[in-house]
Amino acid sequence: MKAKSQRGTVVVAGGAGFIGSHMCERLLDESYAVVCVDNLLTGRRSNIDHLSNRPGFEYRQADLTTSADLIPDDPSMRVTHVMNLASPASPVHYGKHPIETLKVGAVGTMNALEFASRKGAVFLQASTSEVYGDPLVNPQPEDYWGNVNPIGPRSMYDEAKRFAEAACAAYARSRGVDVRIARIFNTYGPRMQLTDGRAIPNFMVSAIRGEPLTIYGDGSQTRSFCYIDDLAEGLFRLLTVEHSMLRKLGELPVINLGNPEEVTILALAQEVLQVTASNSEIALKELPGDDPKVRQPDIGRAREILKWVPGVSRREGLRRSLPYFVSEVSRSWRSNNLQTGRR
Amino acid sequence: MKAKSQRGTVVVAGGAGFIGSHMCERLLDESYAVVCVDNLLTGRRSNIDHLSNRPGFEYRQADLTTSADLIPDDPSMRVTHVMNLASPASPVHYGKHPIETLKVGAVGTMNALEFASRKGAVFLQASTSEVYGDPLVNPQPEDYWGNVNPIGPRSMYDEAKRFAEAACAAYARSRGVDVRIARIFNTYGPRMQLTDGRAIPNFMVSAIRGEPLTIYGDGSQTRSFCYIDDLAEGLFRLLTVEHSMLRKLGELPVINLGNPEEVTILALAQEVLQVTASNSEIALKELPGDDPKVRQPDIGRAREILKWVPGVSRREGLRRSLPYFVSEVSRSWRSNNLQTGRR
Repeated sequence: MKAKSQRGTVVVAGGAGFIGSHMCERLLDESYAVVCVDNLLTGRRSNIDHLSNRPGFEYRQADLTTSADLIPDDPSMRVTHVMNLASPASPVHYGKHPIETLKVGAVGTMNALEFASRKGAVFLQASTSEVYGDPLVNPQPEDYWGNVNPIGPRSMYDEAKRFAEAACAAYARSRGVDVRIARIFNTYGPRMQLTDGRAIPNFMVSAIRGEPLTIYGDGSQTRSFCYIDDLAEGLFRLLTVEHSMLRKLGELPVINLGNPEEVTILALAQEVLQVTASNSEIALKELPGDDPKVRQPDIGRAREILKWVPGVSRREGLRRSLPYFVSEVSRSWRSNNLQTGRR
Repeated sequence: MKAKSQRGTVVVAGGAGFIGSHMCERLLDESYAVVCVDNLLTGRRSNIDHLSNRPGFEYRQADLTTSADLIPDDPSMRVTHVMNLASPASPVHYGKHPIETLKVGAVGTMNALEFASRKGAVFLQASTSEVYGDPLVNPQPEDYWGNVNPIGPRSMYDEAKRFAEAACAAYARSRGVDVRIARIFNTYGPRMQLTDGRAIPNFMVSAIRGEPLTIYGDGSQTRSFCYIDDLAEGLFRLLTVEHSMLRKLGELPVINLGNPEEVTILALAQEVLQVTASNSEIALKELPGDDPKVRQPDIGRAREILKWVPGVSRREGLRRSLPYFVSEVSRSWRSNNLQTGRR
């Protein structure tokens, strides 16, 4: 459908990904036109199929790293906002695609910034709690500079995102782009990939299948998990808040978005067992390299500037996610059986 | 001249820069053929003019960020090494060219890595002590992860170099490139630009002109300065050392190169006054943002693996640099007078 709207057009790079697809939906609900750009490296058409007939939605399969012309010039389309959500974002995915992850974080972000600069559009960059690395401060406020190993096994992602922030800073300062950076902490919910190696899909899938839930390390490392609807709300507020509201954050508004409620990985596994009513066991395995021991957002800025706090409890979020995971597990079971001919 | 040699060919990206031009010279002295690639954004033809007639030297004006084909395929040319020294490298230059600095650090480095990977060449990346940021550990060993503000006023350089290191790590791990990373600390000597805003050229030029030497802050911040010939020796050793010698550093050899002798900026200014026999005064000005308070290399690895220690004292290095600075000051005085018609 042609992207036209009273409220303007948002180009969502990475719009077919987990977070991206929820943002596209949310923006359409708010009467924005949406151009979803994705190269489907880790994004999936199935995440946005249900949006394809909605007025104002347009999908373009394109690679952000090859061109700054994200969409063709069309005077009838007033691009008001650009959201850069494009990147492999789980350790399994960026470990498998290290070069692509570096490239989209650097080249992709600079292309998207060029585009926003040319269009005079507000630019929202999805950054990550990974820029804090293995933090020496807990919880992490936005002015904490982080503790990241530049050559570590996760550095293709962490450093690409730090670079993306530096690129935002350069375009804001030297080109006057209205940039907003969201440092996104762990998020979960429907449309996460089953095989992306993150704790919640891992636990959900294992619990549904009745297989052991694998914990890396002793399970005492803590994390905080934000339900996708809460995150989409925070991102939407950051994208659309008046520039003047952000001024008190200095020249570069960076805002943590995440759920500050901490849980140990072991306790999370037990909660998943309860929500899924599963009898699975819990198994411990060796911790991979440079895995942060703690990670918890300080969301003081989001609370003050965006009036945002996550409203969905973990138990509620896990419950809401359950139907998706059950259906995905059953779909993958069926497709495996069809492929192999096993019963 | 056609680049042919018994010992192989080294492609030096950024070869017309301060460090690059000294490396080209050193490599020719060691019987390597050299292809010097530079876009002359901050490099200068005059740095390599004296090399143009030397057998085995070839200069190509090209932009590392536009193509991974650094040099045309020529079966007679055996590219054995790639040195990536391309980047604006002083706060004045990267402040003036923030986008170009980000681009050469990210796109340029990935292009150079692609090229090295295709040629099966050893790859040396010039990184910087700036990856340590405002260090919380002094001196800085290579396994210190740094304290860098990702959106600070210097982040276009610091984060581009951290990204370059992460890119090296990714190409080493996923493509098997024989990568060596040099974290270069402050270096000085002939062919530095007078106007690059660094302490030594600033002080030298002011002292020679009889103008006040400006110190930012109270002058108690310390730095360490390595003479260019010492640095070129260290880089040459890191470039050519047998891969097996680097194995004890783990999968990614990173080596600090710098002179560990610390000096306060105030004491340095006084030394310059002595070496130049100048009567200039010393003036204090406000410190710019994110200026590190200390910076000193731990060179244990270079000493052990490369058998390298800097041999030129600061006083000796300043003396050796003096004729260059005197001649540049007089040249810029003449060219200003020619341009403005003043006496």
